[in-house]
Amino acid sequence: MTVPAPVQWQDGKLTLLDQRLLPGRVVFEEQPDAASVAAAIRDMRVRGAPAIGIAAAYGMVLADRSGTDLVRSGAQLRAARPTAVNLAWAVDRMLRAHARGRDLLAEARAIHEEDRAMCAAIGRHGAPLIQAGANLLTHCNAGALAVSALGTATAPMYIAHRAGVSFHVYVDETRPVLQGARLTAWELAQAGIDHTLVCDNAAAHLMGQSAVDLVIVGADRVTANGDTVNKIGTRALAIIADYHGVPFYVACPSSTFDPDTATGRDVPIEERPGSEVTDLLPAAAGGRTRNPAFDVTPARLVTAYITDHGILTTADGFPRASP
Amino acid sequence: MTVPAPVQWQDGKLTLLDQRLLPGRVVFEEQPDAASVAAAIRDMRVRGAPAIGIAAAYGMVLADRSGTDLVRSGAQLRAARPTAVNLAWAVDRMLRAHARGRDLLAEARAIHEEDRAMCAAIGRHGAPLIQAGANLLTHCNAGALAVSALGTATAPMYIAHRAGVSFHVYVDETRPVLQGARLTAWELAQAGIDHTLVCDNAAAHLMGQSAVDLVIVGADRVTANGDTVNKIGTRALAIIADYHGVPFYVACPSSTFDPDTATGRDVPIEERPGSEVTDLLPAAAGGRTRNPAFDVTPARLVTAYITDHGILTTADGFPRASP
Repeated sequence: MTVPAPVQWQDGKLTLLDQRLLPGRVVFEEQPDAASVAAAIRDMRVRGAPAIGIAAAYGMVLADRSGTDLVRSGAQLRAARPTAVNLAWAVDRMLRAHARGRDLLAEARAIHEEDRAMCAAIGRHGAPLIQAGANLLTHCNAGALAVSALGTATAPMYIAHRAGVSFHVYVDETRPVLQGARLTAWELAQAGIDHTLVCDNAAAHLMGQSAVDLVIVGADRVTANGDTVNKIGTRALAIIADYHGVPFYVACPSSTFDPDTATGRDVPIEERPGSEVTDLLPAAAGGRTRNPAFDVTPARLVTAYITDHGILTTADGFPRASP
Repeated sequence: MTVPAPVQWQDGKLTLLDQRLLPGRVVFEEQPDAASVAAAIRDMRVRGAPAIGIAAAYGMVLADRSGTDLVRSGAQLRAARPTAVNLAWAVDRMLRAHARGRDLLAEARAIHEEDRAMCAAIGRHGAPLIQAGANLLTHCNAGALAVSALGTATAPMYIAHRAGVSFHVYVDETRPVLQGARLTAWELAQAGIDHTLVCDNAAAHLMGQSAVDLVIVGADRVTANGDTVNKIGTRALAIIADYHGVPFYVACPSSTFDPDTATGRDVPIEERPGSEVTDLLPAAAGGRTRNPAFDVTPARLVTAYITDHGILTTADGFPRASP
């Protein structure tokens, strides 16, 4: 497994992998201050809920070292992607650590290390769901590039692959930003996992032909009732999987659970520039475009949540955030 | 309404609009013979089930004029897009006309004129479904560019618009070939119909927000039981519409009904080159790709069929092909 870590802290310097350039180019950029980290999050140079949280934590370290007001930097970082709960969670944790006089770098490193351990736990709990010969389908990139190590949706795949289980993954290209085509297909290729790239439109056809045994996706936020906020297209995929009787799993660390938000209807859905839709076909620019970046998957369409605390369902009284 | 006709016969010459170049360039190409027409159909320079049928009919006229064997030319044309039933239907009709010693140009012109009349009838029957203030959603291009005049899925829109009804259309971009972004959005803009381009992934989110009142799509083939073969992504859209209680209409001329094929499972689904998926993101090329071009929407998910014979449902004992 040779996927480079998307967020790296070394010799007092924060470096982020510019994921917008993948799979064509692998470029690392040093971040001088919290403002540049906020910009990298906003521009999606760093993306994936946990990776954003880790980057923001190191961004707070940079703010502290340059004597910038931490509350202001925290607000700036938090505003960069309003949907991702990990971002606010990491910023708040850094502010609390600061208030208690703790070492901020140690706190950021702890967040980073806990994330690695969480990914490994998600992988350990989820791997048994992948039987030999199984066909999986995944959407967007909840992979190693989105977090610190094994990814979330991909963690069970990496663990099963290492254990010698043979399986195959359909990768949704994931319009408009093509995280599946750009990142997940690239990641799985690095890891030597058998996969096929398909358009998002193909999922229902594949399921209709019994070509998909299970779906695993990540999440940006899971509300108190189990509603799952994730990349646009996830809601459609869950409805389609339900129609075909295909199990639909959400893999996510505990920090993704948001017990303070009752349901998915209470989560503001970020609308991003229409240019993300028309960039690939410049001649189509000019007309009106809408580009919601996320959607809400109702809890009852989620077979189970693959978490670092085990496989959980809403029937368990879960989801609850870890203490 | 200033959408140019995609298939034109004038002064003994057949000209096709190269739809692959839209919306950036409007280029007409003269077709010297049936082989070039077959190539234009295969390459999707001309596309849309009825337009393909009309082009093939004129292709048979060209074959006859150059003394080419009609049975062989017919087989060549028919093989260009195996899924479209109109193609086989038009070729067979031309072969029958030839066998009966009828004038082939008159027969092709009759097919063309019947198509115009069919579109107008579809529009007349479907327009009342579009209430003032309605939000529609459509997939792919079953528009004026796909047929002879008003389109099929778009015909009710054009008729309602001419009658002064104010409404709005969400246009699915329709990956991988982007017929929605390239063609439908362009067509509706020409006609002055209010519309918004969205990624295919956004449909479930929009319906979840009650932003869509009805879906109208076209069809490449409707089997005896009402199963509908149409552009990849249509099956997903129908499942999603059903989940949200949004009416889902299939607009198509009678020639699209195929009483000789029992169900959608009996229709071979064309798989097209993976390069259509990776063309927009060349760096993603190299891995394995699957690209099914069509899918099957189960009859029970279709609210009704908007046809030249009126609004029909499977409860009417329909669908049946016209005599």
